[in-house]
Amino acid sequence: MPSFETLLYSVEDGIATITLNRPDKLNAFNTTMMKELIAAFDETDGDDNVKAVIITGAGRAFCAGADLSAGAQTFDYDSRGGADQAARQEQGVHRDGGGLVTLRIYDSLKPVISACNGAAVGIGVTMQLAMDFRLASTDARYGFVFARRGINPEAGSSWFLPHLVGIQTALEWCFTGRIFPAQEGLDKGLVRSIHAPEDLLPAARALAREIIDNTAPVSIAITRQLIWRMAGASGPMEAHKADSRAIEARGRSGDAKEGVTSFLEKRPPNYPDKVSKDVPNIWPHWTKPTFE
Amino acid sequence: MPSFETLLYSVEDGIATITLNRPDKLNAFNTTMMKELIAAFDETDGDDNVKAVIITGAGRAFCAGADLSAGAQTFDYDSRGGADQAARQEQGVHRDGGGLVTLRIYDSLKPVISACNGAAVGIGVTMQLAMDFRLASTDARYGFVFARRGINPEAGSSWFLPHLVGIQTALEWCFTGRIFPAQEGLDKGLVRSIHAPEDLLPAARALAREIIDNTAPVSIAITRQLIWRMAGASGPMEAHKADSRAIEARGRSGDAKEGVTSFLEKRPPNYPDKVSKDVPNIWPHWTKPTFE
Amino acid sequence: MPSFETLLYSVEDGIATITLNRPDKLNAFNTTMMKELIAAFDETDGDDNVKAVIITGAGRAFCAGADLSAGAQTFDYDSRGGADQAARQEQGVHRDGGGLVTLRIYDSLKPVISACNGAAVGIGVTMQLAMDFRLASTDARYGFVFARRGINPEAGSSWFLPHLVGIQTALEWCFTGRIFPAQEGLDKGLVRSIHAPEDLLPAARALAREIIDNTAPVSIAITRQLIWRMAGASGPMEAHKADSRAIEARGRSGDAKEGVTSFLEKRPPNYPDKVSKDVPNIWPHWTKPTFE
Repeated sequence: MPSFETLLYSVEDGIATITLNRPDKLNAFNTTMMKELIAAFDETDGDDNVKAVIITGAGRAFCAGADLSAGAQTFDYDSRGGADQAARQEQGVHRDGGGLVTLRIYDSLKPVISACNGAAVGIGVTMQLAMDFRLASTDARYGFVFARRGINPEAGSSWFLPHLVGIQTALEWCFTGRIFPAQEGLDKGLVRSIHAPEDLLPAARALAREIIDNTAPVSIAITRQLIWRMAGASGPMEAHKADSRAIEARGRSGDAKEGVTSFLEKRPPNYPDKVSKDVPNIWPHWTKPTFE
Repeated sequence: MPSFETLLYSVEDGIATITLNRPDKLNAFNTTMMKELIAAFDETDGDDNVKAVIITGAGRAFCAGADLSAGAQTFDYDSRGGADQAARQEQGVHRDGGGLVTLRIYDSLKPVISACNGAAVGIGVTMQLAMDFRLASTDARYGFVFARRGINPEAGSSWFLPHLVGIQTALEWCFTGRIFPAQEGLDKGLVRSIHAPEDLLPAARALAREIIDNTAPVSIAITRQLIWRMAGASGPMEAHKADSRAIEARGRSGDAKEGVTSFLEKRPPNYPDKVSKDVPNIWPHWTKPTFE
Repeated sequence: MPSFETLLYSVEDGIATITLNRPDKLNAFNTTMMKELIAAFDETDGDDNVKAVIITGAGRAFCAGADLSAGAQTFDYDSRGGADQAARQEQGVHRDGGGLVTLRIYDSLKPVISACNGAAVGIGVTMQLAMDFRLASTDARYGFVFARRGINPEAGSSWFLPHLVGIQTALEWCFTGRIFPAQEGLDKGLVRSIHAPEDLLPAARALAREIIDNTAPVSIAITRQLIWRMAGASGPMEAHKADSRAIEARGRSGDAKEGVTSFLEKRPPNYPDKVSKDVPNIWPHWTKPTFE
């Protein structure tokens, strides 16, 4: 089991739970958390025992946003030195740390469920946009506060947010920077479902179970890539190219034989294929976008 | 009138009705149905008497998905031989049959209305995604069951579905593979409206009539292409290029003169232009995507 | 203060109000109005005192669509001569006038709020699609009537509309051409909120105030470009490229220091940066699309 400074990490019954764990700082995001989140998703992708991922926060917040302990210098990356500066020099160009996290989640091979237990502000909400499902406690609240801090939406949120909730709502949340409750998130399509605080993690686990107990992990990995990538594609021909390759490769797989046979025999499936070695390359016609 | 093995086809008062007609197999999809659906849309596009198309199913299902009578070999295209293998050899590469159908519907010059009378599972629901309107009977139910069979969403559905219902819902339906009722489809935007079983076809015909009785068929053909293609376009400039060409060509047409004159004279319009010969080419700047 | 023939223009407390002002013609759109709307948005963008823009109509309509006083020749641009013909010759190619307006609004550096006080038909509604927020009076009604006039959706609306309300609703409104009330617009996501006629402008101003009083104008200008452009982008990497540049430039700005400091000091912010000179170029990797 990997060990982290800013996260708790555990795996049980096929479900990895990643807990943002700086409760005295309302789980404020810093460079260490950024790197550890990326490492945690490398771990969940590489471990065939993990078939779904839940993210939640320790204490009363989910994540209160960037750690503002540097005060006015918080977002002045040239002046901050230390780990942040080292990270920038490593990259040779400034890449937003929130975006490194959301792009890593975007590429996840496992389903990702947010269990938002409290305040989710700034990067605390934008990191959730790349997750597949956003479940909320009645205590959850959200804020795209960037313009209130003199900066701008980050972490790729200008792509994610209008694709999730539409342009008009994305603009209102980002233009006003207001804090809003889970119910508004549900009404606008950001939040999937709202739960009493004590029911939040059980609800997240139940959704994970519904996926794990019925479906083939390699099918889920392919489906996840297909839907996220095609959500930004120009038309159905791009999907047809990728899903034709996928269905040809998967149609002859042991999973497909087991899927049809178990269905016809009305018994639970027992899929043989593994995400670590059986995901076909269905994107030969597609160039993965790079930063520069 | 064309005659089909797996479909019924009729035209009345400008409305073509295509009925999936393997009721003893719950209208399960096979290679013959694939080819006949494509041929049926070639027919509706080529016949100026057809101004709208309704698709429904014979018996108690709309379409129960792929015909599983080949059991574990169902999706193993190399091993199946016969018509399927011939089709693959003809193409020289595997193209998903469901995608050939949805791409044909995507290009339809006439409005396409689904009247979903019962179960619509797998290709039974993904074929409906390329239709303009999804009307449902209270008996309708839907399932994106691919991951439960060890395969993956096909027929371009990874593009269509998030564009129709958003990313979060698309992921949930495809990750769980659960069967859901018409009401959930309505709540999430997949279904346009729900009707008592006996009211379903009348409702579909009423919607077709509202279009046919008021609008110019060539205008509808152009509008259909514009909206579907621009739904995946990068920005409004692409639409501006195409609609400028369209409005220039159509502005001088007999249809435009009749449209304005009949409106000012408060009488029903009688549009002279025909889809078979009067649709202008508004896409000189646009390259139609190809499979390879 | 600029003076217009078809518009009223005023600025108060940071809010510019543009009023379509041909009330005896139900504010029907003509070539003069097209040019003046473009000029008005050049004015709002260039004036640092303007931090939000409201558009409304004089009299009982918002805008009844194209001026049909030329009768059957209305949309026959070759035959019309005069200002229209001059404009076409200037361009060397036909560009739809409505599209010139919506593309100008799309590029606005200030938030744009529609206060739709009555009928909004044809270009009267499509011009609103490029605005950020559509507020409606209970008297408002909308119609995408193009196919009923023998023409087609213009002003880039085939891109805007499915991105705002989804494909199925966009198709229904454009295929039927029916007139529908504000409530249907609200239910489908076109309209943000509905107000009694006397409350419409106060509600628009309250929304503008919420933005102006809390956020940095340069942050809003960047946010507006990010969300509109990324709504049509292929994936989050495009957003990550632009928002990384933005957050680097803005993070070291006086606005960011003031934003964080005022937040930590729990006082209202006083942002130093100006839209006229402090908007960074965050799009070096992106080529702005051109007409030809």
